[in-house]
Formats: sequence, C-alpha cells, structure tokens
Amino acid sequence: MTTRPPAEVGMPLDAVDTPALLLDLDAFERNIARLAGTVAGIGPGTGVRLRPHAKSHKCPVIALRQMASGAVGVCCQKVSEAEAMVYGGVPDVLVSNQIVGAPKIARLVALAKQARVAVCADDAANVAALNEAATAFGVRLPVLIEINVGADRCGVEPGEPVLALAKQIAASPGLRFGGLQAYQGAAQHIRDYTKRKDAIDAAGEKTRRTVELLGRQGLACDVVSGAGTGTYRFEAASRIWNELQAGSYIFMDADYQQNLGPDGKPGGEFEQSLFVYATVMSRPTKDRGVLDAGLKAVSVDSGMPRVAGMQDVEYIRASDEHGKLTLHDPRRALSVGSKLRLIPGHCDPTVNLYDWYVCYRNNRVEALWPISARGATL
Amino acid sequence: MTTRPPAEVGMPLDAVDTPALLLDLDAFERNIARLAGTVAGIGPGTGVRLRPHAKSHKCPVIALRQMASGAVGVCCQKVSEAEAMVYGGVPDVLVSNQIVGAPKIARLVALAKQARVAVCADDAANVAALNEAATAFGVRLPVLIEINVGADRCGVEPGEPVLALAKQIAASPGLRFGGLQAYQGAAQHIRDYTKRKDAIDAAGEKTRRTVELLGRQGLACDVVSGAGTGTYRFEAASRIWNELQAGSYIFMDADYQQNLGPDGKPGGEFEQSLFVYATVMSRPTKDRGVLDAGLKAVSVDSGMPRVAGMQDVEYIRASDEHGKLTLHDPRRALSVGSKLRLIPGHCDPTVNLYDWYVCYRNNRVEALWPISARGATL
Repeated sequence: MTTRPPAEVGMPLDAVDTPALLLDLDAFERNIARLAGTVAGIGPGTGVRLRPHAKSHKCPVIALRQMASGAVGVCCQKVSEAEAMVYGGVPDVLVSNQIVGAPKIARLVALAKQARVAVCADDAANVAALNEAATAFGVRLPVLIEINVGADRCGVEPGEPVLALAKQIAASPGLRFGGLQAYQGAAQHIRDYTKRKDAIDAAGEKTRRTVELLGRQGLACDVVSGAGTGTYRFEAASRIWNELQAGSYIFMDADYQQNLGPDGKPGGEFEQSLFVYATVMSRPTKDRGVLDAGLKAVSVDSGMPRVAGMQDVEYIRASDEHGKLTLHDPRRALSVGSKLRLIPGHCDPTVNLYDWYVCYRNNRVEALWPISARGATL
Repeated sequence: MTTRPPAEVGMPLDAVDTPALLLDLDAFERNIARLAGTVAGIGPGTGVRLRPHAKSHKCPVIALRQMASGAVGVCCQKVSEAEAMVYGGVPDVLVSNQIVGAPKIARLVALAKQARVAVCADDAANVAALNEAATAFGVRLPVLIEINVGADRCGVEPGEPVLALAKQIAASPGLRFGGLQAYQGAAQHIRDYTKRKDAIDAAGEKTRRTVELLGRQGLACDVVSGAGTGTYRFEAASRIWNELQAGSYIFMDADYQQNLGPDGKPGGEFEQSLFVYATVMSRPTKDRGVLDAGLKAVSVDSGMPRVAGMQDVEYIRASDEHGKLTLHDPRRALSVGSKLRLIPGHCDPTVNLYDWYVCYRNNRVEALWPISARGATL
C-alpha cells in the first residue's frame, strides 16, 4: 500500500511526523536553476543539453520542473520508472540502461507509442529482441550503445567492438542507431578534483575515438550521453558529450558533499535540499541518543547520514528502525521528542524508501509530492 | 503507488519478472513449524511463548500463519506497522519500541480499542504522555519497560533505575505495568556460539535481578520479552524470559547464515526461504556479469547478497540498479537473460523494498502476498 503522507500542507515544519523525507524548496529550486544556467551558458555554441536522471527523484512533478528550466527530457533506469514519468506527463525519456526479457521489452516499445522513448544496449541478442518487439508494435526505437568508459560495469568496449553492434542496430527496421551511452559512474565519487577530471578525460578519449570510428562508417552519433553530478562540468566542456545525465544535483547527499573542488575544499556548488526528518525517541545516557530513523528510513550503503546543523552530534549506527547517536558535547540539549534533520549518505536509495516528499519553505509545508516511481524496479 | 506484482499465480518460477522477492513456501513452512515445535516442547513447564517480530515480514498473512502455529501474537516496531497487522486480522500486538510524539501516541491508544496492544517505554515524560492519551481514549494500555541488557541502544539501566518508572506506570490510571522488554540485539550476530551464549547469560542476569527487585516491591512482570533468531534457544531455556521475539527465522539471510553453531559450523537450524530473483542484464567479459538488482532491490547494510547455488559466482558490488558479478569459473554459462536467486545480506530492510511476496512451490507461483506494512515507518 502507498503510505499516507506524514504531513499536511500549511503545517509548520516542526509538526511534521517522522521519519519524513523533507525537501527544502528554496535550496532545491536554486540547484535546478544553477545547473540549468550553467548548461544554458555552455549550450549555444556546443549543443550540450541537460537530460537529468529521474532515478534520483522518481517524481514526475520534479521532472517537469527540470524541463521547465530547459532540460530536454529525463533519463530512467527501468521501464516501470519510464512508465511513471510518461504517465506523469514527461514527453521524452532515455532509458539509460539495458532492458532484458520479453515482458519488459514489450512494455518499453509500447511506451514508445505514447512518448519519445530511447534505450541502451550492449548485446547483439538483446538488440535482436528489441527489433522484433519494436517491429511487432510498429515503432522505430532509438537505441544507444552503452560503451565501457572505465566503470567496468555494463557496456561494449570502446572502438572496434562497437562497430558491429551499431551496424546491426542501423540495419534493424524497428530500430534507429541513436548514439552512445558513455557514463563513467565510478568517477563520480573520486574525491580528488584532478583525479576525477583525469578519469573523465580518459573516458572522453575513448568516447571520441569511438564516435570518429563510427562516423567514418557513416554511423552518426546523434546523442552522446553521460556525466553525473560529480563530473558534469568536465563532460560539458569536452565537446564530446552532448547530453548530461546528472541527477543528484537537485538533492545532494553526504557522499557527494565529500567531493573536493579545484581548491581542494569539499562542498561544491549545489546545496543540500533533501533531508530525513527524525525524532529523538530515547535518551538513555548523557552521550547517547536514539532516533526513530534506521535502515528503513535512510540508506547507509554509502555511509551513515550526517546530522544537519549539529557538528557535535554523530549518527554512528543504523539498525532496522533505530539510529544511534553519539552526543560529543555534554551541553547539547536533545530531549526525547526533539526533531532533527539528517543528510542521507546516498540520496537515490533513500528516496526509494518513501512515497512522499514533504516540501517546505520558511519552515512551513508547502506541498506533498508523490514519489510515483518508488519501488519501480521492473 | 503500490507496484503491481512481478508474477501471476500459476506461472512457472522462471517466468517471474525481476527483480522479485521470492518466498520458497516449503522452506518457509518448515521454518515456522520448526520454531513452533521447539517452543511447544519448552513451553508446557515454563510458560514460554512465541511472539514473532512482524518487522521482518510486514505481512498479516504471515503473522496469521505464525499464530495458527501457536504464536500468541506479534511484535511491531512502529504504530503504522501495528495498524497494518490489526487491520489484517492480528488480534494481539506488542509494539516493542518507544512511541514518541502526540500524533503517534493517539493512534497507538486508539488502536488499543480495536485489538490487544501493548507498548514499551524508557522515559518518564513519555510514560506521562502515554497515560494522558490512554485516559483520553478510555483505554488501559499495558506498558513494558525497556531495559538495556547490553546492546546500549534504548532502555533504562537494569536494577534500581527501573523501579521509579515501573511505579509511575503502575500509578497511572490509563496504563498497566506489563513487564520488561529485554532484547539483546547486539548479541544476535556474534558469530561464536559460546560468546553469543555468554552475552545472553549476562543479559539474563541483569533481567533476573530486575524482575526480582520489582517483585519485592509488588510489581509483577507478566511479560519478560526478548530474544532474536540468533539467540532464542538461550532465552527460551533461561526461565527468565517468557516471550520470544524472533523474526528472521522464517526467512534467514546471508548474515544470520554466518552464525556458528555449538559445533563451530555455520548454517544452523533454519533454511533460506527468502530470495531476490534477478536477471543477468549484461555480460561484457568472460568474468563479469551485471544483474538488474542493485541497491533498490536488495539491502547491503549487512554485506553483499550471495548467489544461491553458485559458489563460483560472486556478487561484488551494488549500485542503484545494478549488481556486479564476478564469475570465478570460466565454464559458468550465464548468458544475458539468465535468472538467478540472491540470498539477501539482511532480510528485514530487503523485504521493505517490495510490495509483494512471490510465493512458490515446486517451481510454480502459488500465491502473491501483499507486504501491507512496506514503508510503514510512522
């Protein structure tokens, strides 16, 4: 069942029940405007476009906000995520991932009758299955080839190995060769600025070489897609990529906040807008507190959450429904019932635990946005 | 939104879409019968009862199965979880946790008008708030005092500190002193059998001393609740605890499977019944595969999942929607589209990612059970 929202519009922030997923609308809107402005500044001469990743927010309301600020559409990872976006009014979706298995492929090509939909592939048999389904549904589906630019996850090796697959796509009546998916996911969280840039430079060289090789064979790459919040400035400036997939920039998280800028300092240009609101449910000792937000309220895959605005309070351990705090300053008053905001270690899987964004401004709840693609993994 | 199920009843297992949460009904039923049999064998002379923890399964269908096998009710961690159980037909719920804040307390005491409901507390102001709400709703709410028996999370220190709180509860017209919550959570995953037993022996000593102290003051502990899947045999044999809260035993997970028995061997008496079904979506190299099940399909807080039945295939890394495999045996055929079963590292937060159990027997889908309390954190 969809859970009911932990708040009502108009309520003061401190009346919101916990755990709740909070969105600071001012910070969120500034983040959207900031990246949109940067891309608009780069765009005119280079054709670089923004197609933010909807896997971060899973919310058509947010996708449409991004498009209203200039994004050309969104990326999704799953067909069910793409369905949620299209049904929520998003007209243009790149599924930046392989879609495998007849039921999912049928839904993908059927969705392409309702909106502009493209997909990625890295396997000949999968391309054949996509073509068969697209032909059956009477659509011509754009397919980007995912290439491995250093993350060593999915993807064909750059250069020659891409050629045969691109020719197969181009020769498939139900498909159209759409370009390359060249996402260096492993680079996003390299802390050191220069090393992060080096990883993208190396990915760019592989991508450029592949684009040129395909071009010499008459296979134009309309779209060269990649980049995340940690590296997008490098891809944007490269003249190689023309679509940027950054997603986390709207929210940020404790992991991304640790990336270092060119000045060697952490933080960066985007503000933390996403928080998990939690209540102190137990204060057994002077230096120990327990929150009502554990593993089912905040994802700890990239480390523990941080407590916003309290350097002296440390979230040290999550169990299923408890978050254990160490209070390093004995003067810190944090009685049972106090509420505080956590900065999640990793925004995407944390969002996936909730059905609602509790959007606030000036300490008042202004909107409840449904996370329509929560749990959309099929 | 609730996601639609990834399967239909009657379908062969290998037609189930992925990622899906699978439940092997034979193994699951044997696990339920095994613990029920053990408790029934201990019970007659000692009054030891089973009250399994519903935070593991979040599913009234399973709770009622447990009660049909002798359980006296279930435990929950959250009011919303308790609501899901009561609305699903469960007549008796212990909220084995502190409930803080007026909205939640109102729902808790109101729920006590619909079913037998008890709660835990470790704070005088919280007890006063419970009493006020219970009085307003005209119920008499049993309250157990949570004591810290070594996990150093919530709970009053055993012995003297419990006395004042017990007296406060006993003197509250809306409340009834119900006994002690003495759960040693930190002991559940101590690998060594003797050390695990030592931790429960120490917890038992603290609990016994507290029960006796309260008894001398005329405060009888009707219920002394505790134990988990890792330690329940120690609590059951102690003559101190009389309610056992084990939850994971119905499913098991990769973490619990690593606990060592008295013979120094891992495994134990319960079978793995819970799996995440996943599809190979990419096979870029001979030794690398990628699954469609990542952080949003399996919780990695207690380590990576294991691949069931394939010692030579290792799940080495999870990203949002990808699970990276290393294939240690070059002869392993695992082509794109192959499906396999993962043993989650930690069952509880993995269950919380899904809306449906796909229950199967003899490789055929036999039932789809709704995970009614998925996301129920309020």
